[in-house]
Amino acid sequence: MAIAGTVDDQAGHATSSLDRLLALVKDDLEKVNRTIVEHMHSPIALIPQLAGHIIAAGGKRLRPVLTLASAGLVGYQGERHVKLAAVIELLHTATLLHDDVVDESELRRGRASANALFGNQPSVLVGDFLFSRSFELMVEDGSLAVLAILSRASSVIAEGEVLQLITANDTETTVESYLEVICSKTAALFAAACRIGAVVADRPKAEEDALSAYGLSLGVAFQLIDDALDYSSEQAVLGKTVGDDFREGKITLPVIHAFHAGDEEEKTFWRRCLEKLDQNDGDLDHAIALLRKHGSIDATIDYARKYGDDARQALAIFPDNPIRQAMFEAVDFCIERAY
Amino acid sequence: MAIAGTVDDQAGHATSSLDRLLALVKDDLEKVNRTIVEHMHSPIALIPQLAGHIIAAGGKRLRPVLTLASAGLVGYQGERHVKLAAVIELLHTATLLHDDVVDESELRRGRASANALFGNQPSVLVGDFLFSRSFELMVEDGSLAVLAILSRASSVIAEGEVLQLITANDTETTVESYLEVICSKTAALFAAACRIGAVVADRPKAEEDALSAYGLSLGVAFQLIDDALDYSSEQAVLGKTVGDDFREGKITLPVIHAFHAGDEEEKTFWRRCLEKLDQNDGDLDHAIALLRKHGSIDATIDYARKYGDDARQALAIFPDNPIRQAMFEAVDFCIERAY
Repeated sequence: MAIAGTVDDQAGHATSSLDRLLALVKDDLEKVNRTIVEHMHSPIALIPQLAGHIIAAGGKRLRPVLTLASAGLVGYQGERHVKLAAVIELLHTATLLHDDVVDESELRRGRASANALFGNQPSVLVGDFLFSRSFELMVEDGSLAVLAILSRASSVIAEGEVLQLITANDTETTVESYLEVICSKTAALFAAACRIGAVVADRPKAEEDALSAYGLSLGVAFQLIDDALDYSSEQAVLGKTVGDDFREGKITLPVIHAFHAGDEEEKTFWRRCLEKLDQNDGDLDHAIALLRKHGSIDATIDYARKYGDDARQALAIFPDNPIRQAMFEAVDFCIERAY
Repeated sequence: MAIAGTVDDQAGHATSSLDRLLALVKDDLEKVNRTIVEHMHSPIALIPQLAGHIIAAGGKRLRPVLTLASAGLVGYQGERHVKLAAVIELLHTATLLHDDVVDESELRRGRASANALFGNQPSVLVGDFLFSRSFELMVEDGSLAVLAILSRASSVIAEGEVLQLITANDTETTVESYLEVICSKTAALFAAACRIGAVVADRPKAEEDALSAYGLSLGVAFQLIDDALDYSSEQAVLGKTVGDDFREGKITLPVIHAFHAGDEEEKTFWRRCLEKLDQNDGDLDHAIALLRKHGSIDATIDYARKYGDDARQALAIFPDNPIRQAMFEAVDFCIERAY
């Protein structure tokens, strides 16, 4: 097989990357990117300017890649997966724009966020535009099944975002409640992106469900690692400001773990910083030290590994082939970002 | 005909109201209200709390009433119009929530706005939820034609909102540009609400187009009067703060008219207040005095009357009957609110 990408880095350590998956869907992904650019067009110039700012910043295009890969895994031969992968990315971009407004984020994908650059007002409205436009594209595709999956996913994402807002600043948040948030706000779109690959190919329900299960577990693992990175990464790697979650009082798994493992003095520290948002210089460093002391980052990665195993297991019903191998590797990539 | 509502007020002046139209669709509108309440439900309690706050405040339910009336006008006998009228109101409510965040409004329908009461963050997210939920309901209805109309209308609304944001604070805004904004941000949903009445009844394209034209012209007239009321009403009548548009630097037709009719000193006044947003006590009163001096409110109402005539004209292809009469009266009502 002539597939780009390495499984060993220069130092000889095993590393995983998305390269293999990206190589397999390369041509389709270029079509997806063109479709996205075409459909964010509007005579109101600010719309493609603002949407272009966030879309050009790129990111990994992980969600549309999953749609393309899933369609490939089940042997789909048509072109519908390209348009629907673009739909997935437009929906995702709409939620990013609104998220950044809600979180008052300054950075997104390593650049100034759209709200920081253009203001909150156009970010809200251009988010609405991309959202509507993505539904227009689904209607063009013409499948009520797809519309059902993605309108449901959108509602679930919004519910997850609201739940996250409610549990923010609440150090008593349980692991279950946290997992419910990330299943909704992140993993639901991963699951839908994968499921659609089977839907366009008109595959049996069991294959739809298997791909959805893969996406859901992968999405949870991905978000768990994102939350770990927020306390353990370099800004350059993360593409956003380190410690954002801490400053916003977001209660993520590393914090839940450290809070429960901590003594009364530590609990008081977490409550002051995350509930009262009364933070001083050095508090983020102290928080990171507490996470290290209790092994909370490692515990979070262990959770992610478990979901990664589930993701791999979900693909067991499909025959072994290069796409399935690349989808396994995507799981490893999502988790190994933490190192 | 035993229809509720009066055409003469106590002083004997001719007055128009929505009463006749409301009486004709009363039973269906109750079903619409129940459908709305059912579908804004979520296990995340804040969602129905916040959505319920704005939906319970009511408003006139003008848009869903138009769907019900349009379906009635073309003789529709089924039940789909109820669900789709609820869809229209959910979509409208989603845009209201986002509008109020963008405009930083304090009041909506005479009560504290959702953003003032709950904050901007949940208002953005619950707006997203209602938006997604409305598409879920459309999918339940199962018509790609309806989905095409409403996904397109949603994109157009968002474009109109962005255009309004761009033209805000620009006193050089033309009448044409202003009309483009209100066609998109307001009238597009009126047009879609009416068109859907013909779509569910599977009526010929000419009837669809006629109802859409009625809705579009009515929507423009409605918004023109809204913009006039912002400078001429009492808060209790308006259900929002008088002078909101002035304080936000929104360029509406009354201002465009007075600006063009004004001398250099007046133009300097408008620029200071609306472009630089440098406003002092008494400026709103002075603005209102200038609008009176140039007859700008009357000019705006004249525009609205012209659109009202177009709305009536659009219904000419339908036979005269009580629903058509009530839809004529709705036009008068929208315009006479200005007195």
